[in-house]
Amino acid sequence: MSENFRLSPDFETTSTPLVGLDLCDARLMNDSRFVWVVLVPREADRVEIDDLSAQDQSRLFQEMVATGQRVRGMALALGRPVEKLNFGQLGNVTRQLHVHVIGRRTDDAAWPRPVWGVGEAIPWPEGDRALLKKTWSENV
Amino acid sequence: MSENFRLSPDFETTSTPLVGLDLCDARLMNDSRFVWVVLVPREADRVEIDDLSAQDQSRLFQEMVATGQRVRGMALALGRPVEKLNFGQLGNVTRQLHVHVIGRRTDDAAWPRPVWGVGEAIPWPEGDRALLKKTWSENV
Repeated sequence: MSENFRLSPDFETTSTPLVGLDLCDARLMNDSRFVWVVLVPREADRVEIDDLSAQDQSRLFQEMVATGQRVRGMALALGRPVEKLNFGQLGNVTRQLHVHVIGRRTDDAAWPRPVWGVGEAIPWPEGDRALLKKTWSENV
Repeated sequence: MSENFRLSPDFETTSTPLVGLDLCDARLMNDSRFVWVVLVPREADRVEIDDLSAQDQSRLFQEMVATGQRVRGMALALGRPVEKLNFGQLGNVTRQLHVHVIGRRTDDAAWPRPVWGVGEAIPWPEGDRALLKKTWSENV
């Protein structure tokens, strides 16, 4: 972990922390329409994937794939099994390097479009959020 | 390469082939608003990243990063330097596993939104397409 890393305040308002991974902070988006996790490598001043060292790029990809598998488990615990995973590394608005991992269903609020910028977020009921955090933790 | 691999016809109408990489077919999207390459692993019946073997997942990620670097070179050759790379693995419409690598600029037609589903594609002028294909090939 880079000494100077500080999570962008953009993430504080839109997401809530999960147990972190080796390289990345992991956060659950505050939007109950989707089981949606954001990964943020704990390295300062990274914007593009290839701003990371080769070793950290490999770790990021492994954590993306593992997060996809955990998102499947979280969605299953909610009774809303994932039908397709979506991955995105955009950073057009929040520049700090981050990766989106989203469980999609054909009955979700944005299908088949990407989730970004579609409608308004609907916060998680507290019970569901607790279940998701617990399910994530059991698989880290 | 899997014997039974066949490129989805969806890609034939929207993109044009570039010199392929070790794992993936590479295709230039027929949309001059963005320097946008799609990678399609030449393995049959893959939908999710973790449908690939662990070794092929690593190769895919290496090819994604290398493609980002080539997209930077292609955009520079056009005089439209990339300001941010965008990566996406969605597959909500075309299920065959594929990854988007897109060079973005703050003056492009979709900024800061993602590119998918925004407006109508504008075909490349033949000279620009030839330049992009040549620049890609010189870096493969």
